Formats: sequence, structure tokens, C-alpha cells
Amino acid sequence: MTIYDVAHEAGVSVATVSRVLNNTAPVSPKTKQKIMTVIEKYQFQRNALARSLKKKETRTLGIILPDITNPFFPEVFSGIELEARENDYTLFLCDTMGEYERETQYLYMLRERQVDGIVFLGGRINLSKVEQNLAEELQTFAQRVPTVLVNGSIPGNPIHRVCVDEGAGTEQAVRHLLALGHTDIAFIGGLEYMTTTMQKIRAFKKVFREHGLTVRKEWILYDDFSLNAGKRQMKKLLHMSHKPTAVLCVNDYTAVGAIQEAGRRGYSIPNDISIIGFDDVPLATAILPEVTTVSQKTELLGRTAISILHKLIQKEKVKKLTVIEPELIIRESTAQL
Amino acid sequence: MTIYDVAHEAGVSVATVSRVLNNTAPVSPKTKQKIMTVIEKYQFQRNALARSLKKKETRTLGIILPDITNPFFPEVFSGIELEARENDYTLFLCDTMGEYERETQYLYMLRERQVDGIVFLGGRINLSKVEQNLAEELQTFAQRVPTVLVNGSIPGNPIHRVCVDEGAGTEQAVRHLLALGHTDIAFIGGLEYMTTTMQKIRAFKKVFREHGLTVRKEWILYDDFSLNAGKRQMKKLLHMSHKPTAVLCVNDYTAVGAIQEAGRRGYSIPNDISIIGFDDVPLATAILPEVTTVSQKTELLGRTAISILHKLIQKEKVKKLTVIEPELIIRESTAQL
Repeated sequence: MTIYDVAHEAGVSVATVSRVLNNTAPVSPKTKQKIMTVIEKYQFQRNALARSLKKKETRTLGIILPDITNPFFPEVFSGIELEARENDYTLFLCDTMGEYERETQYLYMLRERQVDGIVFLGGRINLSKVEQNLAEELQTFAQRVPTVLVNGSIPGNPIHRVCVDEGAGTEQAVRHLLALGHTDIAFIGGLEYMTTTMQKIRAFKKVFREHGLTVRKEWILYDDFSLNAGKRQMKKLLHMSHKPTAVLCVNDYTAVGAIQEAGRRGYSIPNDISIIGFDDVPLATAILPEVTTVSQKTELLGRTAISILHKLIQKEKVKKLTVIEPELIIRESTAQL
Repeated sequence: MTIYDVAHEAGVSVATVSRVLNNTAPVSPKTKQKIMTVIEKYQFQRNALARSLKKKETRTLGIILPDITNPFFPEVFSGIELEARENDYTLFLCDTMGEYERETQYLYMLRERQVDGIVFLGGRINLSKVEQNLAEELQTFAQRVPTVLVNGSIPGNPIHRVCVDEGAGTEQAVRHLLALGHTDIAFIGGLEYMTTTMQKIRAFKKVFREHGLTVRKEWILYDDFSLNAGKRQMKKLLHMSHKPTAVLCVNDYTAVGAIQEAGRRGYSIPNDISIIGFDDVPLATAILPEVTTVSQKTELLGRTAISILHKLIQKEKVKKLTVIEPELIIRESTAQL
């Protein structure tokens, strides 16, 4: 259905249809009505693609993330969606399933689709040592397409980013445990080469140092970010002759796994061991005991990423780094020693 | 960066660049190399939008769903993503946040973006009585844009759909409880006007009838699909003088809420009460006891939706209804009476 078909069916000229569509010159109400009836009948639509070509904007954004089934990301995505809708953007969701190669493919694809900007979460921007070609690829991309990184960074020229201060969040968590009388504290989960793990452990050690305490090396148990990681590492801890009285977990998933494993072995949480998570995903309140955790303010995080990106697209000045303060949420999985 | 810029920088004619890009005529290796270097240098890309206009396809699909933070949908989305990638589609994810008006907005927007097809989950297609204008809108849309409905339907001409047989899944769950000796069974959660709730209750009553049993009306407790619905309704059940020995839940979320509430009130699951969920989302194995549930085979469901949609787009014949058989997964939340 083109403008020519509409003109033909309404028995008017193409110019008249154009006048009505673009409101460029007055047309008699009767003629206008005739044209609108045909348009409604066929649900004639202006061609969004053609308009995009002309306007050099597509009002589409690409969202690259590593795993939509990890509940942290849908929560952030909700904030992204809310803010994107308010600014009339539609979203391509690109789930890389944790593979760097797919990140590359999606970057290429999103450029080809001429998105107005992208938000990048997880993957290579969370590596403490990223391969040079992965870094350069994203740098080059960001020079051409407005880009915002969430909770990560990349070597080279700083790309605009919004980060939750995970170190500050971890400090709050450790101070909470110290205030409850715990000094035998273990750390569970997280890949050693990911910045999110490193930042948390660094903050953990910092607070301990400030209190003249030392973190026991054998109680730092790296693993991945899954429920099973929490189970595996809790099992290890419970087999040690000297057991911690409290456990910091890299995220809520591992905390819930740790709580499940402890419960299965007859330990009562928080009476026998205090456990603390990170993220505040819905899972944290689904189990008994509800999990004490650090909120990353996921909706705000997602909204902020888009509001920064929108400003970049409109060529407004934005500071390179926006920091969101996390918040300790005390629930039932931590108790006085 | 246009083809003219490439030609200029490489010191060759536009026609030569075109020959290389489109491989329409032989070009000397040396010239080709020169052009490719310039192209790589500037990451020259063919204009995907222009190509889409010419080809009348965009290789984009729209996915409309009600709530990405409900873990059922990310699980289905993963299957959708896997199959879409294999067929070279990129996905617009449209989260309606449960509002019918947003469904309308997204349908309009996706048509304007000229997606090659859409997958529709939840919302109006799950209403047992849908308003006529909502039904007609989707019917009209589906006549123009290839459309696949997941776990739902709409009055009027049948639209292609893929459904898990939720009735059959519920029958398996009820038979499992009967085999364990339970006949005092309650049903928790689900909005009364949603087909997913109705189908399950109908199947529950059917199996009971077959065994000469009657479902107690006061034990059918409608609510929404949330964790809190499970908590609220379990609390009601535990306040009754005659309590059920087993509870069927509309989904895993309500089952986990019910388990949490029972635990909080000192009931041991499954020793005191057996509880069974539906969906098999990751949450089902995150808690203690792990939840007996009915798997909707979410990845297969998502994959199947896209493979049907892809056939529709290619104008292949596909049957209107594809049914996926669900599977009872026996875990720890159900036990012999």
C-alpha cells in the first residue's frame, strides 16, 4: 500500500494525499475525510524505514547483555525499557550467552541496523584483563555509535559509563557483619578475573585492614556466579575444621545456593552462620530466611543508562562516569554472633 | 562514509568499488586490496536500512511479552533467541508490563518498523473473555504480519500458535498427588479470568471426577501469579479448621511463596503438606525443599515459536496449532501421605 494507492482509491491526487499526511497545505474537510477513511481502511502507514534513512535516526537502541535468565539483567532491563519508552526508543535485545564472539557479532549487526546507540552490560567490560582486540573493537565502535557501559569499563579512552559502587556496597555488608560481632568471615563465588569479584574482595580486605583484621586466604573461594557455585563452596567451608561464622557472597544466587547447602547439612541460618548476598534480585525474598543483601538499585541503574545514552545521542555534554550508591538491605539471613 | 568516499580515498572509480562490493565483475587483486583496505579502515558498511527497503524484509522480529522479570519469560526468550540467531533474525523485545494499551502501542510500532513477524506471549491472548476490539486488533495485525501466539489464543480466525498442554500437565500433577495418597488437595493462585488458571482447574476437577472425588470449593483460591499470592493463600488455608494435605499451585512463584509461608508458620514441607508448582523455572531448584513441578520445556517452546514463524515468513504451510507435551518433575516438595 503506497501513497499512490491511497490517492487512487480516494479519487484524489497524490499531492493532495501528501498535503493531508504532512499537513503542509489546507485541504477541504470533506476531501480530508475521504483520504483518512482510505488510510484507516488499509491501515496505511508511513514507511518508518524510509523516514529513518532521511532523518538519519532510527529511534532504535541495542542492549547487549550476557544472560537474560540471570534475574539481575531482566531487572535492569525493566528500568531500561521504562526510560526508553519515555524517549520513544525501541529496543533490540541481544543476549550473548556469555560468549565474546557473539558480542562482536552483535556489535557489527547493531551498527548495520544503524541503532542510535547501545548499552553494554557484562562480558568483556567486566574482565580485569581484557584482550587488546576486544577492547579496541569496542573503542572503535563507541567512537561511531553512542555507547554506555553498565557496571564495567574497558582500557583506552574512557567510554561513558554508569556504575554501582560495588566496593562501597561490600564495605557496608562487611561493616554490618562486624557490628554483629563476626570476624570469621568467608567470601564465596565469583570468577577471579572479573572486576565485580575483584572490587568486592578488595573492599572486604580494606575494611578488615581498617579494623586490624586479616582475611584468611583459604576462606576466599572463587567460583562462578551460579547457585551451584554457592552450594559447592559452602560444602567446602562446612568441611573445614575451622569454620567461618559468616559468609559474604558475590551475588544473591550464590548466597541462596549457600543457604540451601547449609540447610541441607542441618545448619540453621542465621543462627549457626550468617549469610549475605549482593544485588537484591526477587529471589532474595523468595526463600526462608529472606536474604540480607546489597541493592544495586537495578531499575535506577537501567533508567540512568538510557538517560545518559539519550543525552549522548542528542550531543549533549555528559560526564564520563555516573556512580550509583548501593544500599544494604538487612533481612533475615544475618544475626548477632 | 559512502561508496563515493571509498572510491575517492582508494583512487578508483565508484563503479570499481561497486564491482568489488557486489562481486559483479572481476577486479585486479591489487585494486581490490586497495579498496578493501579503505573499507576496513573506515569500517564501511552497506546500509542495512536501504537494503531492507529494496528487499522488503528487515530480518527483524518483534517479541511482545508481559513481564521480563517473571522468570518464565526470560527462559522462553532464550529459546527464541537461539532459534532466531540460527535464522539470522534480530529481536525487538517489547515488555508491555501487563498493560493492554502497551500491547496496542507495540503492535503499531512493530508494524511501522516493518518487522518480518512477531511472537506474542501473555496479555490479551490469555484472557478467557477478551474485549472484542482487542481481539480484532490482533486479528487485523496477524492478517498483515506473520504472527505466532505462545500459550494463548484469540477469538476469530485461528492465528498460528504453539501451546504447552497445561491441562495435561495438571493432570500429571494431580495423579502424582493421588498416587501418594492425597485426596485433600487445594489449588492456589492465578487470576480467575486467565485461561492458564481455568485450564488447570478444569483438569484438576476432571481427574477428581474420574476418581469419584469432588474438589472442595473453598479450597480453590484464586489470586494473581506472584510469590505474595502464594503466601496470602497459604496463610488462608492454614487458618482453616479442615486443612488440605496437598496444594497444587498455578506456577512455581506461588508454590515458593506457599512453601515460605508454611515454613514460617512451623509446617514442614513435604512432611506436613505436599506442594507442587508449575513451569520449572530456576527458582524451583533454588529453595529447600526443591519444588516438584511441571516443566513447560521453555527453551523448546521458544524455539518452536520461531521455527513456525520463520516458516510463515517464507510462506510455507504450517499447521495452525502445535502442542508441546509438558513433563512432571518430581523433586522434594511432595511426599507420601
